Amino acid sequence: MAEAASFIERLPEYRARVHAMLERALPPASQPPRRLHEAMRYAVLNGGKRIRAILVIATGEALRTDAGHLERPACAVELIHAYSLVHDDLPSMDDDDLRRGAPACHRAFDEATALLAGDALQTLAFEILAGDPAPGGAAAGTGEMVRTLAHASGSRGMAGGQAVDLESTGRVLTFEQLESMHLHKTGALIRASVRLGALGAGARDPELLDRLDEYARCIGLAFQIRDDVLDVESDTERLGKRQGADAARNKPTYPAILGLEASRAHTRALHERALEKIQPLGRDAGPLRELAGFIVSRMS
Amino acid sequence: MAEAASFIERLPEYRARVHAMLERALPPASQPPRRLHEAMRYAVLNGGKRIRAILVIATGEALRTDAGHLERPACAVELIHAYSLVHDDLPSMDDDDLRRGAPACHRAFDEATALLAGDALQTLAFEILAGDPAPGGAAAGTGEMVRTLAHASGSRGMAGGQAVDLESTGRVLTFEQLESMHLHKTGALIRASVRLGALGAGARDPELLDRLDEYARCIGLAFQIRDDVLDVESDTERLGKRQGADAARNKPTYPAILGLEASRAHTRALHERALEKIQPLGRDAGPLRELAGFIVSRMS
Repeated sequence: MAEAASFIERLPEYRARVHAMLERALPPASQPPRRLHEAMRYAVLNGGKRIRAILVIATGEALRTDAGHLERPACAVELIHAYSLVHDDLPSMDDDDLRRGAPACHRAFDEATALLAGDALQTLAFEILAGDPAPGGAAAGTGEMVRTLAHASGSRGMAGGQAVDLESTGRVLTFEQLESMHLHKTGALIRASVRLGALGAGARDPELLDRLDEYARCIGLAFQIRDDVLDVESDTERLGKRQGADAARNKPTYPAILGLEASRAHTRALHERALEKIQPLGRDAGPLRELAGFIVSRMS
Repeated sequence: MAEAASFIERLPEYRARVHAMLERALPPASQPPRRLHEAMRYAVLNGGKRIRAILVIATGEALRTDAGHLERPACAVELIHAYSLVHDDLPSMDDDDLRRGAPACHRAFDEATALLAGDALQTLAFEILAGDPAPGGAAAGTGEMVRTLAHASGSRGMAGGQAVDLESTGRVLTFEQLESMHLHKTGALIRASVRLGALGAGARDPELLDRLDEYARCIGLAFQIRDDVLDVESDTERLGKRQGADAARNKPTYPAILGLEASRAHTRALHERALEKIQPLGRDAGPLRELAGFIVSRMS
């Protein structure tokens, strides 16, 4: 367990590394158009758990690759995630004033700037992902990385899940419909993060990629259920957004459909399945194992 | 001149080819999420001049490549263009109800759907561009193509120009500021179209790429000046948007800064410079020559 404990202890260090990578990837605020660049930096550098970037790095490390090869995909997934939050918070979407305890981008700036900042963050994700590879990195994998990220983010992935989510507000969903929505809305990008880490490490074995993909599918769902459960449990301070916001907005959630206890049991089953899938990786999978544990038990 | 005339005669045929490519590239409306996919198709397949895709194809043909290698970049630039129009028309941006004579996407659907459709169209552009190349096509160029399109579309290109445009409304710009704004807002994607056509044709000679880039810079600016002049000249029917809309919105334009006659003279000078740059390509540059002429003299 010493190995496992050390990864969680190192989480703040991973976050600092991701933060430094993102700082480098973003245009400086001194470069025009300044207000747009300030808004982009505001939306990305305001904290966040960096789960997606850390998944890229942890997967790459489990496959024993150098972290230098993982910087581009790690930044790219966080930039896509940040763009999606900026657009989700807009008045025509979820209309949220707070994000991570601070004013949402369109409140700190204005709606037009937030819209453009989100647009430009998405573009930057692909620019960075297709950037010149680190010395020794494989340029040949660029096309597959871009396809992976784009497919996960678009209308058949994250954006599609968001569209279904909007249509679902106030409607009664079945368990299957709810799960399908989340597999797209948050699951697709989490799966892409693991796949990008594996591709960055040069992994091409289909059986290994499938195992990692199923691991990612399980923790992606578990992540979302934990989110829904936290929304019921938490107070506003800890979560940085209004407590019970989903229920107030009449959004379908796991606790609403399954009940709180069955939601927790579902999380445990997904957690077990995730661990089983990475079992053959042995000791090297320590960080992935720890991350799964962190995701299902996190308090914010 | 027989050659020249034949290209313009073939414009409807080129448009039909681009339309067919885009039809194939877009998710079918029958595939869920249906409303999102309908909105994406509505925004892309409602006509348009397809200047950017045709520039990709004309550049590739001038360099004697097969049109099959140009389908991916030709679709990608049109998808980026379509996404930018959907977002520009939103109430928090230009607040336009009409696009190409029909209801803007957010009027035909709703604001949230239009926002997501624009987001997903941008993603699709990169997914298509990084897609499996046509048999015989060069996968090695994918990274450079994605970088080219992303750089042209992001905060240091099109989205950045849009941000400057928003800030400029109601302000007095110098000629240099106006030109810089348009070099980003519309110029960057037009230059990317020509560069993508050249990359798709396997061109790597820096001198040739520079010549083509200067050609594209000139016709990009000429395109915008023609737009401004048309806004003053045209009636609503022909343009498909309200006449004098720029002036009514107090947007800085070439006619406002230079006067109508000097704007036309500037267009002629840019046209000449563009033709000079592609002179060494000889007969093969016929389509590019014709396109330049079309751009400066178009009536809508």
